[in-house]
Amino acid sequence: MGTIRIGLLGCGTVGGGVVQLLHANASLLASRVGAPLEIAGVLVRDPERERVPELDRAKVTTDPERILGDKSLDIIVEVMGGAEPARGYVERAIDAGQAVVTANKMLLALHGPSLVDRAIAKGVDLAFEGSVGGGIPVIRVLREALASDRVTSLLGIVNGTCNFVLTRMRQDGLGFDAAVREAQAKGYAEADPSLDIDGHDAAHKLVVLAMVAFGARVDSARVPTEGIRAIEAVDHQFANRFGFAIKHLAVGRDRGESIELRVHPALVARDATLANVNGVLNAIALEGRALGPCLLSGRGAGDMPTAVSVVADILDVARARRSGAAGLMTRSSTPRPLAPLDEIETRYYLRFQVYDRPGVLSRIAGALGQAGVSIEQMVQEGGGDASGAPVQVVMMTHKAVERDVQRALADIGKSDFVALPTRLIRVQE
Amino acid sequence: MGTIRIGLLGCGTVGGGVVQLLHANASLLASRVGAPLEIAGVLVRDPERERVPELDRAKVTTDPERILGDKSLDIIVEVMGGAEPARGYVERAIDAGQAVVTANKMLLALHGPSLVDRAIAKGVDLAFEGSVGGGIPVIRVLREALASDRVTSLLGIVNGTCNFVLTRMRQDGLGFDAAVREAQAKGYAEADPSLDIDGHDAAHKLVVLAMVAFGARVDSARVPTEGIRAIEAVDHQFANRFGFAIKHLAVGRDRGESIELRVHPALVARDATLANVNGVLNAIALEGRALGPCLLSGRGAGDMPTAVSVVADILDVARARRSGAAGLMTRSSTPRPLAPLDEIETRYYLRFQVYDRPGVLSRIAGALGQAGVSIEQMVQEGGGDASGAPVQVVMMTHKAVERDVQRALADIGKSDFVALPTRLIRVQE
Repeated sequence: MGTIRIGLLGCGTVGGGVVQLLHANASLLASRVGAPLEIAGVLVRDPERERVPELDRAKVTTDPERILGDKSLDIIVEVMGGAEPARGYVERAIDAGQAVVTANKMLLALHGPSLVDRAIAKGVDLAFEGSVGGGIPVIRVLREALASDRVTSLLGIVNGTCNFVLTRMRQDGLGFDAAVREAQAKGYAEADPSLDIDGHDAAHKLVVLAMVAFGARVDSARVPTEGIRAIEAVDHQFANRFGFAIKHLAVGRDRGESIELRVHPALVARDATLANVNGVLNAIALEGRALGPCLLSGRGAGDMPTAVSVVADILDVARARRSGAAGLMTRSSTPRPLAPLDEIETRYYLRFQVYDRPGVLSRIAGALGQAGVSIEQMVQEGGGDASGAPVQVVMMTHKAVERDVQRALADIGKSDFVALPTRLIRVQE
Repeated sequence: MGTIRIGLLGCGTVGGGVVQLLHANASLLASRVGAPLEIAGVLVRDPERERVPELDRAKVTTDPERILGDKSLDIIVEVMGGAEPARGYVERAIDAGQAVVTANKMLLALHGPSLVDRAIAKGVDLAFEGSVGGGIPVIRVLREALASDRVTSLLGIVNGTCNFVLTRMRQDGLGFDAAVREAQAKGYAEADPSLDIDGHDAAHKLVVLAMVAFGARVDSARVPTEGIRAIEAVDHQFANRFGFAIKHLAVGRDRGESIELRVHPALVARDATLANVNGVLNAIALEGRALGPCLLSGRGAGDMPTAVSVVADILDVARARRSGAAGLMTRSSTPRPLAPLDEIETRYYLRFQVYDRPGVLSRIAGALGQAGVSIEQMVQEGGGDASGAPVQVVMMTHKAVERDVQRALADIGKSDFVALPTRLIRVQE
């Protein structure tokens, strides 16, 4: 029974975790695969850096050729991160007929469909559970548990930084800046947190999920994306009053002729499961035509959760390799039209910041009514004092079309009673 | 490339769903397996009964020998339900070297470990995702996503009937009997609901989960099991007041030298994810040493969700069969001592129903204190009128050992001021 030989590209914290897990579970994994697994080579940048004790130093190299030029390797595990040179390495491994396991979100978001096509054309496996949702086995569930079903929608809390910040604001009344600083202090946010906070990271993940769930090839730059910078403490208070929590969501829906993808903060009913996924936890709610609803939650990032996902992928591709059937991804993704954001229909939370003058409410209600947007609830706060400070008028609309709401807001925005920009938050039913 | 030939034992609603899914996804599944899948024979009791149109009537038989005697079959799919004759059929298939997929919870709960051992000894696969949690891919996640990790605990809402009844009581104020009648009317509960309501079904599922998660071989009759009959509307009200929801839980924990398994109602913090899994939905929360927390939720029963799980298993065993490595279950379970219930340490909700006499509170507090149980919060309700009706005294304790709490309750129970039995509900942190 031939050994399965593994080449590791990168040996940082995730890579080190992979080495440890493969070492600690060697006999179990060998019996599952039907052959022992061996780490035959490890590419690193800095050979002097301290590594996990389970790593055999004799296997470490700084020369990519020692790994990529070795045709005896069965599986290349890419845990270096970053789009380049990872892409070139992964392409070369696929072309050489080697199976690839990667935990590289950036790589998948930018080049996922073309890499999958390349792997399919070559008949090799490309597995990437670790690239989305850390330790949450969402790719596996989409690919296998739902192999005979059709996913109609997905809804995800896929950015731990945003979820942490919103949770601290909601539960503990922190302001946005203080919550971000705390996330940075805890290592949950980068020094420059904009990739997370502005929603781009979530858009990357949504694009990878859409590829697996809907077979859709989408450029993440085309996904309507809003971050959480505009959410203020007062929005959490009003949302709570109406029975909601504010969550940062990645939304995907297969509409048949098009797909709907969007990333933005949303009001979620306070007693919905998703509303109670807090802190840095992530969650993805799927809807399968036959399966019905399915929710997966867990640590969306972190070295060991991601390493567990990588090792699960190694197990899969090793077994497929022994069977001679590369069986993970056989579905090529195709470009599909994105439904324009202004076509969606949902309820809206609108917070107007206006000067307290007679007739203001009727002007706002009138503009909404003229656009065909009807109001379900209204709350006004802060009026009646002599300070002249703007008052907060919050309206929850009935279901309305985004285009109509935006038209009404543009109309209202021209009025001289508007003191500060109006906040719009979509409601996720 | 040889066809994978499947024999189906039973063709009720789940079996019919399997036939439909295999038919609708034939080419996708063939490309994933590397060979076409063919339903070669279907065992039914009543050949006249109407079946799904996708079923080839020529393959239908009432003679078990036509399926079990056919050595050309690769996979036997058992969807008949019931412990017998399913067990004999499954054993015979294993002995013949055929892979087995089953969705039979009763079979697994009663004979899971011996069937798994038999399959391991014979080197064939036995897959049973459909037997626990319907469409929730929990077995797959335990077996594969966590292949290199160690599960330290699991917590499940695994009985949809109990969860529906408790949800209706909590959210809509229904009484227990009314909620059960509604569950029956909706088809969520049997005419005799005791298997669900008294917790035995949940104990069966917990035993199957403990086998996969902890490698533990346990007789479900030995699992401390309480149902939800004793929960009254007033308990939901008090729980809510203290910030909790009442859920029926299956609890498993690996304590190293022993494992802790128990099934009972529990107070769960109202904003915990599990507390917001409502209606007939099920959920299982796992804790992996490396993975951290992981929650899976979805429809725990139902024909199509279960059929999706069965087809996912068929895909797995078909691929393993082509690879020549039976790779699903390689871990035999071993008998492990169960930690006695009276050793557990948690917080308790205690509802005393007592006559309103001077000194009663101090007698209760005294008995608890003497047993080393300290009180965190107390609420008394219904006192002060002249009717002589019992008053409700509810206490939330600090962490205490079950044995001590039970000793105090036995002591208090002897007093003549106790009007009705005291209710104890454990708090799940």
